[in-house]
Amino acid sequence: MDRKVQKEVGAMLTAKGAATRQRIIEGTSAEVRERGAAATTLDDVRARTSTSKSQIFHYFPGGKEELLLAVAAYEAERVLSDQEPFLSALTSWEAWHNWRDRVVERYRTLGVHCPLGVLITELGRKTPAAQALTAQLLERWQERLRAGVAAMQRIGEIDPGLDADRTAASLIAAVQGGVAVLLSTGRADHLEAALDTTLDLLKSSGRRTPELLHVGASGDPT
Amino acid sequence: MDRKVQKEVGAMLTAKGAATRQRIIEGTSAEVRERGAAATTLDDVRARTSTSKSQIFHYFPGGKEELLLAVAAYEAERVLSDQEPFLSALTSWEAWHNWRDRVVERYRTLGVHCPLGVLITELGRKTPAAQALTAQLLERWQERLRAGVAAMQRIGEIDPGLDADRTAASLIAAVQGGVAVLLSTGRADHLEAALDTTLDLLKSSGRRTPELLHVGASGDPT
Repeated sequence: MDRKVQKEVGAMLTAKGAATRQRIIEGTSAEVRERGAAATTLDDVRARTSTSKSQIFHYFPGGKEELLLAVAAYEAERVLSDQEPFLSALTSWEAWHNWRDRVVERYRTLGVHCPLGVLITELGRKTPAAQALTAQLLERWQERLRAGVAAMQRIGEIDPGLDADRTAASLIAAVQGGVAVLLSTGRADHLEAALDTTLDLLKSSGRRTPELLHVGASGDPT
Repeated sequence: MDRKVQKEVGAMLTAKGAATRQRIIEGTSAEVRERGAAATTLDDVRARTSTSKSQIFHYFPGGKEELLLAVAAYEAERVLSDQEPFLSALTSWEAWHNWRDRVVERYRTLGVHCPLGVLITELGRKTPAAQALTAQLLERWQERLRAGVAAMQRIGEIDPGLDADRTAASLIAAVQGGVAVLLSTGRADHLEAALDTTLDLLKSSGRRTPELLHVGASGDPT
């Protein structure tokens, strides 16, 4: 379901209905995190969220598949919100380092049980719904990183000659690649190395101009 | 099977036996690339490689699983050999850009049908054999990139202050992350952005010293 449709559904629900729907989603998310998407049944969800089967089908007429898709959208939202308040205010190196620490901590804690990854795999990586969800998440994530890169360029901390959007794409790839290696080896070294190296290089790209001025100034004949 | 055991097995085979074993592996690789690992049967392999079932079991007593593991090792080898001759001689920016183009071309061509990924998934991402294979591939890949970074540091093209091994880990993450996004969106933009941004930043890290000298020289009073 895309966000527009989701919003419309939300608008049609009463406040109480929206709360029940959200309770079902959050309860399913907890089940999936504990036992995996394949092993989670609607009975588990019903028991955990104190709802009836008819309530579940009222909110998710498509049954388990529709529910898992809603949970995947919720987990995608959490991928971004777990990176806040840093991700939306990457306006100093301190903020960037806090963001880096938060990302590493998040994936180190989740380890090989990345809930969104589990759900996308269960829904079928190649289904249009899963692909749209992934594409949208990456787009929103990249946009926030792009805004952060642009902010640092404005204050001269990152070379203004760099393409902010491609730099953001590169940071997304650094995180995804680090997580991919973590998923197959259980170690976060690549994730940390990728973020640290990219941030260090970006930092020195900005430092170049002041250094040049500095050297220029000390380049007076002695 | 680790490389040492594999070598010992290889040593025990006659030249003709080794050729047959290799023919079975390559034929299976082609079947897997065409129809996927799950759908490939030993009958398909037998027909394609003009071997008998008893020959297949002679070389792979563990049957399909053992055969698929040998094919995964073969595909891992190809991941590296497909990047040659550039990967082992990253001693100029030209070589690095050729390597970058080769990597992008490889994954763009394979698209969502990355044969090693398919095999690792089929064998079970979390089995010790699949994990060992992945870890070993990443280690060898990273070592060659590390040697390339160190070579560029020696000739002053990359900042010698950077940790060559972590820089190599960062490049591995760039590739893996770019490929992960390619697998879920079908687009190579992130792969290209990640490699280009990292290489550009590395290039300017090395350029810093000459530029400083240059500006220092033109910093004479006018």
